[in-house]
Amino acid sequence: MKKNIITISRQFGSGGRTVGRLVAEKLGIPFYDKELVEQIALESGFAPKYVEENGEHAPGKSLFSYAFAPQGVPGVMNGLSTADFLWQVQCGAILQLADQGPCVIVGRNADYILKNRKDAFHAFIHADMAFRADRIVRLYGESEKSPETRLQEKDKRRKVNYQHYTGRVWGAAENYDICLNTATVGVEEAAEIITNLVNASK
Amino acid sequence: MKKNIITISRQFGSGGRTVGRLVAEKLGIPFYDKELVEQIALESGFAPKYVEENGEHAPGKSLFSYAFAPQGVPGVMNGLSTADFLWQVQCGAILQLADQGPCVIVGRNADYILKNRKDAFHAFIHADMAFRADRIVRLYGESEKSPETRLQEKDKRRKVNYQHYTGRVWGAAENYDICLNTATVGVEEAAEIITNLVNASK
Repeated sequence: MKKNIITISRQFGSGGRTVGRLVAEKLGIPFYDKELVEQIALESGFAPKYVEENGEHAPGKSLFSYAFAPQGVPGVMNGLSTADFLWQVQCGAILQLADQGPCVIVGRNADYILKNRKDAFHAFIHADMAFRADRIVRLYGESEKSPETRLQEKDKRRKVNYQHYTGRVWGAAENYDICLNTATVGVEEAAEIITNLVNASK
Repeated sequence: MKKNIITISRQFGSGGRTVGRLVAEKLGIPFYDKELVEQIALESGFAPKYVEENGEHAPGKSLFSYAFAPQGVPGVMNGLSTADFLWQVQCGAILQLADQGPCVIVGRNADYILKNRKDAFHAFIHADMAFRADRIVRLYGESEKSPETRLQEKDKRRKVNYQHYTGRVWGAAENYDICLNTATVGVEEAAEIITNLVNASK
């Protein structure tokens, strides 16, 4: 079947977001990253006004950061914790985006949310620690923590979050149509390979 | 760095062996599968004559099947169990093959054994259960067990063996430069992508 809903899951610092953007450009289809998915969820009928109004998230802080907080976000809504409520809102937004037509969605466990769509193509982008450490310092600058520590913390958080909401193992090859190590394959080349596979699907 | 030692790890029935053979043909380099690695190990100075002479393996049964038996193979050699001794012999043979020059090695945990070689390129080939079930029935015929049961047993055995000897998780994307789902990508196309990446490496 023609695959034209592309999900990109990625290790922090691997260049997965850039791969997704390049694939969307090459295919001429919309690109949804974390911020856009969040915005669409907020503007939808499911918008968690309750959370906003109750001021349970710090001003200027991403609402979805709560959905991805490690544990124990306070607040319960309709019997759901804030994090679980946000997970449901996010699922709704992603399912809706996929229904609207061809697109690239980066992150947000979209590979799991869209796992039953036969027209979806799932990619996982990763890279060696050294490659990612160098990349995050170049892109986001230094911080008080070493780049390796920042990466380990992010990796752990994504892994725990993914496992919690999907019951699957983060980064297990069998959940994806393709997994690529950008440290050896290259960011541009990874985008090229995915685009070619999507174009060749039928 | 130029990558010309290619290891292919694969789920049973995914077509990974065929991918490896095609890559070797396209690159014009030797192809070593399970049987050849076993033969080379047996003919090397490390040949486990002890095991052969003590008749601890059934005639006609692959010697290496013992190394991959789930647990508790009887027999101890130089303080090592038969399985552990065979693991060491196999490691030696694979390291030696890689030293001899460009080649494709399928299976035998070669991705782990050669993980420190900067000229090695590691691929993992997998596929959905339905694709693999159909494939093993076509290639190896029916048996008293259902193809799904056969696949589950093989998957489990490879997973346990890999974990035991490498301490790593079988099928974790981060251990490979590329992972491909042959059910969506195709066997020929997987070989083409790997060949192109190896040719482009420098």
